Amino acid sequence: MQNRRKREPQPPLGCQRVADKRYLFTPGPTPVPPEVLAALAEPVVHHRGPDYKVRFGECLERLRSVCRTENDVLLFTASGTGAMESAVANLCSPGDRVVVVSAGAFGERWQKLAVAYGCDVQAVVYEWGETPRAEDLSARLEEVGGAKAVFLTHSETSTGVVCDLQALAAAAESSGALVVVDAVSSLGAVPLEPDAWGLDVVASGSQKALMTPPGLGLASVSRAAWEQLGTSPRFYYDWERTRAGQEKLESAFTPAVSLVRALNVALGLLLEEGLEAAFDRHVRLGRACREGAKAMGLELFSPDEDRSAVVTGILTPEGVDATEMRLALRDRYGVTVAGGHGDLKNRLFRIGHIGYYDVFDITTALAAVELALSDAGADIERGTAVTAALEAYAAPARV
Amino acid sequence: MQNRRKREPQPPLGCQRVADKRYLFTPGPTPVPPEVLAALAEPVVHHRGPDYKVRFGECLERLRSVCRTENDVLLFTASGTGAMESAVANLCSPGDRVVVVSAGAFGERWQKLAVAYGCDVQAVVYEWGETPRAEDLSARLEEVGGAKAVFLTHSETSTGVVCDLQALAAAAESSGALVVVDAVSSLGAVPLEPDAWGLDVVASGSQKALMTPPGLGLASVSRAAWEQLGTSPRFYYDWERTRAGQEKLESAFTPAVSLVRALNVALGLLLEEGLEAAFDRHVRLGRACREGAKAMGLELFSPDEDRSAVVTGILTPEGVDATEMRLALRDRYGVTVAGGHGDLKNRLFRIGHIGYYDVFDITTALAAVELALSDAGADIERGTAVTAALEAYAAPARV
Repeated sequence: MQNRRKREPQPPLGCQRVADKRYLFTPGPTPVPPEVLAALAEPVVHHRGPDYKVRFGECLERLRSVCRTENDVLLFTASGTGAMESAVANLCSPGDRVVVVSAGAFGERWQKLAVAYGCDVQAVVYEWGETPRAEDLSARLEEVGGAKAVFLTHSETSTGVVCDLQALAAAAESSGALVVVDAVSSLGAVPLEPDAWGLDVVASGSQKALMTPPGLGLASVSRAAWEQLGTSPRFYYDWERTRAGQEKLESAFTPAVSLVRALNVALGLLLEEGLEAAFDRHVRLGRACREGAKAMGLELFSPDEDRSAVVTGILTPEGVDATEMRLALRDRYGVTVAGGHGDLKNRLFRIGHIGYYDVFDITTALAAVELALSDAGADIERGTAVTAALEAYAAPARV
Repeated sequence: MQNRRKREPQPPLGCQRVADKRYLFTPGPTPVPPEVLAALAEPVVHHRGPDYKVRFGECLERLRSVCRTENDVLLFTASGTGAMESAVANLCSPGDRVVVVSAGAFGERWQKLAVAYGCDVQAVVYEWGETPRAEDLSARLEEVGGAKAVFLTHSETSTGVVCDLQALAAAAESSGALVVVDAVSSLGAVPLEPDAWGLDVVASGSQKALMTPPGLGLASVSRAAWEQLGTSPRFYYDWERTRAGQEKLESAFTPAVSLVRALNVALGLLLEEGLEAAFDRHVRLGRACREGAKAMGLELFSPDEDRSAVVTGILTPEGVDATEMRLALRDRYGVTVAGGHGDLKNRLFRIGHIGYYDVFDITTALAAVELALSDAGADIERGTAVTAALEAYAAPARV
């Protein structure tokens, strides 16, 4: 461990004088625009009246635009995991062989879900932080003689890796399997083309790039998926029941009307910006975060590539406990970043940059990290991160 | 059909001049107090940080107080039906014999849920509007040789009937069955004693007497229920996973943080009033609604008894279509009441009075109904309903 000179204890910085101002830099929940918060606070309406139905219909249309699909998009009052479970519960029968590609906490979630439903689960497992490869999936599918469905994680939020979904989906599709994708943290942040890429099911949630509080999950369902429904028990997440409700602009069960209205406002903001512009912004946010971290002398855990535009995983310098640093960030500076899981808990921290973020969120996060590391006596380069981030952000995303 | 003199078409009344002021008198979603709406609009916080955990812990404690139980109370991001499904998914294995008592739409929901999970479903079925009897349940349990679980509906929102839950639960318990109760519209409105009455599972939701928008479901789980978990597939609604999360003041999956904070505020308001005071208020609201309707000369569909304190079902006069009247209420007066299901659709309307209601909500509802019926040319007594309601409300509830 290197020699560390700790800063003298100082009074907390940040805005704690203004009623503890907070900064949320986690990859979900993410910050919510004020217009969306205001929609949440509107008086409750009945879910079968026109005040609601008009907005529900608009919300479903906007969801299809954001999902870029002609498929049905089903909305559930649930977090993203509920939407993921709907895919397993509706497609799989006990004993069905499925292949799960797993390189982090959310790949493992697909595994656990498929096991819970009694599937014959064949997993293509990578070390956390690795990027899945289409050829590994093809080889595995050939080895096991095909599968009813392949479960993929577009953005592995636990590691910051965004996979080459198009290539993986092509490998899955060519084996005849249904392609089921966890796009909880990627939808609206990085390019995703369900119809062009042959994604049969795309599951996502409201609380990431869709800039809405958690509580709504969604799943797009292709015609091929509709034709291969399984026999597992299901009721709340039953796709047919859900679709039948939506065809009448209703929900099968009382929906979270406040969250739906908020989501509708948020989707309007996202479409107003434009999806391509949002994707570009996220590429530049990711670059800014990485360049800032590197300028401080920190080591990246997540890939140093444009596709990694959702969350940046960063290792603390040798000798600095990441958990302690995160607590200091939170308690001294009001800044919340995410931690690592399992073995990485004490070395990894993650800065989310999806949804309602601009470059000043990145510079705030980096400035706070610089302070917290300095407090901890880490040997880092000071005074460079913010400028490096600003410069990286200013460069055009598409080169 | 009697001779009806329609009023001349008149400009809409109500407050449509003030941006279409709305009145929500449905038995779920129900109106939400302004403090609760304000909590919804607070900036989003991370679900693993202390800002959230403190309030989540407080919310769970308050839920146990409102549920009046020492059992675990599990919270799900879902509507009440999700909490109901959790009971079936966690307790039942395919082929398990269960008895469902059904006297309306929500009794039928238990039936459908149990069928979806492959149970051997024995139903004690009543006409909609009838009140289930404990002796019928006992007889059925004896006839079929017992059951793993009995599914009951405390307040059948579709008809306005609140059953004698204590008696039904005693009949179920004495057969050795687990007692599972849908208390979605009753919890916090009418007396419910899970521990004293031997209720193994009580499922409810946020959007009724708990005065919070829809999106949260809860289930209390007794020790006996924990000891008899079944083998049905489950993940999102898995009780053990949910409990393990809550023991660390976390949720198994990203919770609807905004709704949880709102629920915490609403539960605080309810406990500040006091549960007994709230029950008394609901008894008097029910009386006020019934006496007002009767004073107009209308026929009640739901029982004219104090226990029917959740929603009042009222039949329109002969010749007046209930659906048309509800549309007129909504479009002319900004007042939303609930309709009837199935065969009752054109005769029944329902005024909900649970949660954030006082007597002036009842008088507003009655005054609007009086206008709409008069518009439709119905032969009703005018000018008496509001006073009758006020007088009924003023009388003490406990006699």
